[in-house]
Amino acid sequence: MKFVAEVLKLSKSAAIRLEERRVLRQALIKHPFFPDLLDAYKLDKKFGEYEEGTLIVKTKDGYDLVRGYPKIRRALTLYPTLIKHFKEGDVVVEEKMNGYNVRIVHFGNNVYAITRRGYICPYTTEKARKLVPFDFFKDNPDLMLCCEAVGEESPFVSKSVYGIKNLDFFVFGVRQRRTNKALPVKIKERLVDEYSLKMSPILDVVDVRMAHEKIIEIVKELGSEGREGVVIKDGEMLKNPIKYTASQSNCSDLSFAFRFFNEYGRNFMFSRIIREGFQSFEFCEDEDELTERCRRLGEAILKPMIDSIKEVSEGKKVVERNRLRFDSLEVFELFKKHVKKMGFEAAFSNPVEEDGSFVVYFDRIMRSTTDKISTHLGGDLW
Amino acid sequence: MKFVAEVLKLSKSAAIRLEERRVLRQALIKHPFFPDLLDAYKLDKKFGEYEEGTLIVKTKDGYDLVRGYPKIRRALTLYPTLIKHFKEGDVVVEEKMNGYNVRIVHFGNNVYAITRRGYICPYTTEKARKLVPFDFFKDNPDLMLCCEAVGEESPFVSKSVYGIKNLDFFVFGVRQRRTNKALPVKIKERLVDEYSLKMSPILDVVDVRMAHEKIIEIVKELGSEGREGVVIKDGEMLKNPIKYTASQSNCSDLSFAFRFFNEYGRNFMFSRIIREGFQSFEFCEDEDELTERCRRLGEAILKPMIDSIKEVSEGKKVVERNRLRFDSLEVFELFKKHVKKMGFEAAFSNPVEEDGSFVVYFDRIMRSTTDKISTHLGGDLW
Repeated sequence: MKFVAEVLKLSKSAAIRLEERRVLRQALIKHPFFPDLLDAYKLDKKFGEYEEGTLIVKTKDGYDLVRGYPKIRRALTLYPTLIKHFKEGDVVVEEKMNGYNVRIVHFGNNVYAITRRGYICPYTTEKARKLVPFDFFKDNPDLMLCCEAVGEESPFVSKSVYGIKNLDFFVFGVRQRRTNKALPVKIKERLVDEYSLKMSPILDVVDVRMAHEKIIEIVKELGSEGREGVVIKDGEMLKNPIKYTASQSNCSDLSFAFRFFNEYGRNFMFSRIIREGFQSFEFCEDEDELTERCRRLGEAILKPMIDSIKEVSEGKKVVERNRLRFDSLEVFELFKKHVKKMGFEAAFSNPVEEDGSFVVYFDRIMRSTTDKISTHLGGDLW
Repeated sequence: MKFVAEVLKLSKSAAIRLEERRVLRQALIKHPFFPDLLDAYKLDKKFGEYEEGTLIVKTKDGYDLVRGYPKIRRALTLYPTLIKHFKEGDVVVEEKMNGYNVRIVHFGNNVYAITRRGYICPYTTEKARKLVPFDFFKDNPDLMLCCEAVGEESPFVSKSVYGIKNLDFFVFGVRQRRTNKALPVKIKERLVDEYSLKMSPILDVVDVRMAHEKIIEIVKELGSEGREGVVIKDGEMLKNPIKYTASQSNCSDLSFAFRFFNEYGRNFMFSRIIREGFQSFEFCEDEDELTERCRRLGEAILKPMIDSIKEVSEGKKVVERNRLRFDSLEVFELFKKHVKKMGFEAAFSNPVEEDGSFVVYFDRIMRSTTDKISTHLGGDLW
């Protein structure tokens, strides 16, 4: 705890109080897979200038800090929001891919992958060590690669729409890991190219005064392909980016939330529903388009909920099932401990060897939704 | 405050603390229209055995108490909930009409109407004094008539489906006003008949083991007519009643809530959406019925929200407009003060005389939704 206090410039007793208040949390499972780390803490809430998900580590070389990925705010209407925010000049329109947010960094001689809330994920780290060349960090030790981890074999957000069978990383930002200063888009592109990384597609660069018109077209097309939406950036990265998503993606989020309706917050659902109203208004939809949007919303909400009720009525548990692929059974064992530390209730299939790796089905058990449905089907009142 | 302490059997300082904690609130606007009341307080939260909406009054004759109408719990699935709750024997299936809950009582020589949260409503009182014979209370001074106030000229819930142009009262319960003990359904029927009152329709009396099947039929029919649902009771009123509503009514609630989306709570919306999932499951709906339910839900949520966004984009405020009809302009003036006391922001049209009464349009201004939409249309981020 002393090193955390030092890094955050606090007294030791203040750091202890942060832990008691659950702002600060021990984040490391000690394991030979993480040979460079002696200890680690993460911030579970924003604290001063430090973002939620900030990771503070103790290595053989001393203390270090990886800042949390900042919250990206959302436009409910593109016009006049973009102009109000970016004022003038060009904006870069990047695809917002649908996976989970990962910061890839190095400690000592190894690559590590940190998920949004500040956990060092063994599964993601195993993939990152294969896919991200250590040279990047040898040459740029102060940088972190902010990536979307995307693909079918994802423990958290599995999507087949990108044609990635396993899991891959798409860089959307490169930042100074201690200060969170973002590098300009051009420099990010150069680094991605130089180290043969992949990048979230840049879809357009457009004058901010016309951006809303162009983005409406882009987002409609992305939505029809089942893709999520866009992030709009100032090329110099001096202003905060803004995100905007397709209706199909909002509905896909709602399907997930209502399938596991007692796990997900009311606010999560509410904000996604409200987006649909503003988007329909801004898109000036005709009667047919609006009817289609209503049908999409209604089905996104009701059908997954009814599926969950049916499953519980048949004596099953409500679970989120994902297929994973490990190179090492040791990492699989470590991942089991990791999801427990995350507070998940989980069940795993036996690993099956396939082309030199191990395929595992990971069921996250949604206990709260399962129990809620079960008590109501058993005759309890609301 | 001394009389409140005495009625609630508290010390005066404990009563003062209740007021400071906003559990207790002054409830009377002194006015010649309320000649029998010297003072009144209401409970804004449940306190001990006393329900939210309990009214404590000081009259020339002493102190008195009118208990709040108890919360009626809801079945998410009819089977096995009804059997679990009522065990055996017949249950009475009454129509749950869609208006607002009013307790009609007397103080001194006059009739008074108390709304759900414990306010003495001048508008409702004016109507009750015309429609409810004082003789009822002369003969039964300890009783309160628990009614649904229903009709088109309703300040809170205006519905045309019951064919009532003005406002009328439908008794659904008769209770001891000081103890909240409910009288058996048969006695309620006799009293309603004896004093020529109106009653919420009794739709069926059925063995509880078959009740779920019968109620599914009833609720489908009520829903198709735009009516709300049912309350299921033990005829002796020794067990608590249970309510169950039609999909069309849940959706109508959701339309209201999403039209005024920033005024209404996330929990309000969430619970109504969840009901739809359980009902579709219990009704064993086929693909067409489910599609229709999804369409209904999606439209109930989105269309009213888009209407509100459009109105604000045209520079209007989002309002709930209701037509009211007063016999006396003095009561109209008092009602204006009343809605202010309720915390509503309101605008009223000038009263227009029509057949000896005064027609007024009452706009409840939904400030929070108006402002929220306005800031987002103006370019603020979420």
